[in-house]
Amino acid sequence: MHLSRRDFAKLSALGLAAQLAPQLNSSLGAQTMPASPDSGKVGYCLIGLGRISTLFAGGIQGTTNSRVTALVSGHPEKAAQWAEKYGVPRESIYNYENMDAIRDNKAVQAVYIGLPNSMHAEYTIRSAKAGKHVLCEKPMASTVPEAESMIAACDKAGVKLMIAYRCHYETTNLRAVQLIRNGALGKVQSIQSAFGFSCDPSDWRLKKALAGGGPLFDVGIYCLNACRYLTGEEPEHIAAYSSTDAGDPRFREVEENVAWVMRFPSGVVATCNTTYGSNMDGYFRVYGTKGWLEVNPAFSYDGLRLTAAYRQDDGKYIQLDEPNAEKIPYHFKLEANHFSQCVLENKTPKTTGEEGIRDMRYIREIYRSAGVKNGISEA
Amino acid sequence: MHLSRRDFAKLSALGLAAQLAPQLNSSLGAQTMPASPDSGKVGYCLIGLGRISTLFAGGIQGTTNSRVTALVSGHPEKAAQWAEKYGVPRESIYNYENMDAIRDNKAVQAVYIGLPNSMHAEYTIRSAKAGKHVLCEKPMASTVPEAESMIAACDKAGVKLMIAYRCHYETTNLRAVQLIRNGALGKVQSIQSAFGFSCDPSDWRLKKALAGGGPLFDVGIYCLNACRYLTGEEPEHIAAYSSTDAGDPRFREVEENVAWVMRFPSGVVATCNTTYGSNMDGYFRVYGTKGWLEVNPAFSYDGLRLTAAYRQDDGKYIQLDEPNAEKIPYHFKLEANHFSQCVLENKTPKTTGEEGIRDMRYIREIYRSAGVKNGISEA
Repeated sequence: MHLSRRDFAKLSALGLAAQLAPQLNSSLGAQTMPASPDSGKVGYCLIGLGRISTLFAGGIQGTTNSRVTALVSGHPEKAAQWAEKYGVPRESIYNYENMDAIRDNKAVQAVYIGLPNSMHAEYTIRSAKAGKHVLCEKPMASTVPEAESMIAACDKAGVKLMIAYRCHYETTNLRAVQLIRNGALGKVQSIQSAFGFSCDPSDWRLKKALAGGGPLFDVGIYCLNACRYLTGEEPEHIAAYSSTDAGDPRFREVEENVAWVMRFPSGVVATCNTTYGSNMDGYFRVYGTKGWLEVNPAFSYDGLRLTAAYRQDDGKYIQLDEPNAEKIPYHFKLEANHFSQCVLENKTPKTTGEEGIRDMRYIREIYRSAGVKNGISEA
Repeated sequence: MHLSRRDFAKLSALGLAAQLAPQLNSSLGAQTMPASPDSGKVGYCLIGLGRISTLFAGGIQGTTNSRVTALVSGHPEKAAQWAEKYGVPRESIYNYENMDAIRDNKAVQAVYIGLPNSMHAEYTIRSAKAGKHVLCEKPMASTVPEAESMIAACDKAGVKLMIAYRCHYETTNLRAVQLIRNGALGKVQSIQSAFGFSCDPSDWRLKKALAGGGPLFDVGIYCLNACRYLTGEEPEHIAAYSSTDAGDPRFREVEENVAWVMRFPSGVVATCNTTYGSNMDGYFRVYGTKGWLEVNPAFSYDGLRLTAAYRQDDGKYIQLDEPNAEKIPYHFKLEANHFSQCVLENKTPKTTGEEGIRDMRYIREIYRSAGVKNGISEA
């Protein structure tokens, strides 16, 4: 068996490289195919080099199945710095005009889209057309139709689409879900969750054209999504109110506060709060017939902590206090690891585009209920 | 000046006794009017001798302006024990049939109604007709029309009506209100509050005919009322959901869970939760442009704790952690003290019947919104 580097990259994308790696390396021999530590790793092209991409790149470096192989940026100098840091060859630096050429870059199996929300759809679709798997930040898009077009494009291209809901991969959040699924809390009855922050006046999040919506879009989505993964259910009723300080120049384009209540089919009722007007702890608290659990903070990049108290069927009273000692960017490591596994083993990601579009629809419903006209385009 | 005991009691009810006490005692002389430590104290008839009345009686004992002077109970033996404990003469023990005779008991200026909710209206009205001031437990009544009839009866009789919203008198709750009013948090934007407990199957609270409603009526009202005293505003929009485990025999007559969201005129949005299905910390958390404060627990009889963090206009970052060392039943002491002051000084109580009926109307709105048919009679 003789394989070129290009052949190997193809196998890698097909998820066979990891499986075949030992025999490939042996048959290729040290000269034609050096036993590189990158063998079998999914190569990512990072699209957008902002803060979130820094975290994701750091996450990738913690994995054994992922690596940064290309960059897309509008700032050549910044891209050059990144290229040096991550060992990306000069020819694998793209800009927003020519990024479609990643199609021909065999070191790229997937893209990570860390752009402002309104750009998610365009770059997901262009990446899919280039034949690359797509890991796209949340919220998935600015509108539901955009999200639909992203799913359609990835389906048509036969590439995977994962929305970067990092809490689905993060250990403390998973521990909360596990406790609930194992029945520790008995029948779950209610959830309280909030997440917000005081937004800097210069933040792109305050620009409707870039952000798509306000705090509900950016951080409230964590509460919404948490209620869904904690219950394993979809909300069947949503009611919401919103308010915006008309005197605060930050909020000319997006809303300031949103509070909403949801009812799930099993009877779980949930209340959520989000804001760009004050620093609001990101947390959730779940109550059931046997006890409660809280994760606070729940959505931060590290320092998460689970506390719980519940009575077991044998009468024993359990109290948990589980701080998570993992450090930033471990969320991103776990997330990257999952998507790369899906790529390598041809599996469906846990948080697909369908998961993302559900939140988009609920967000639309929250904005509708609250009468927020600039919350999300109805189109 | 010569005054009989009856004259003195009249003065006491008019709020003049305290003021005149020294000269009265001197003019009456030791023989006709002994200088009793009870001079000038408001005499209370306790109606219903359950747990809450025990707490209130303990509260009275901590005051210098209140005393227990009569009892109404359906259990003669229990009443006799209470009479001995509080120094109530045998002739001042009444039952539910003959309690109207308190009219002629000059040692009684006020009643405290610690009965199940559905009995509040009847005993408030009978007490008013007997010419006694009324301190009635919350929730004020089972229905809005009942509450209206209570206010009308007290107005007609020219007696004061106070609803026993103890948190309006409790120091940590007042401290939270003070911080907010003083602008420590800046512009308040949102509130989260919850209160619930796992209700014992034998509790009268589960009987619609006695309780009038479920957890919203009994404990959710604390969250509702807190949102009102924290903002100093009335909610202009309310939306709610409720759920009840049909398989739980406790919830045949009242609801199990209620979650609701409110919007206040200034733009404050609030989310609240209540339940009889699990033990849910009673707390509130308030967010503003300059910081946040939390009282947790907020509604317990003691052990309250305020924490807060906010940035002052001079840039200084303030962090507060203020546990309340006062012990049960200090809430009731402060509450009794306030009502007695109002009686003695002919002032209007802070928490009038109008305050109580507002909550009744909002509760009705929450039940309507949530579609809880047995929540509160619409009549």
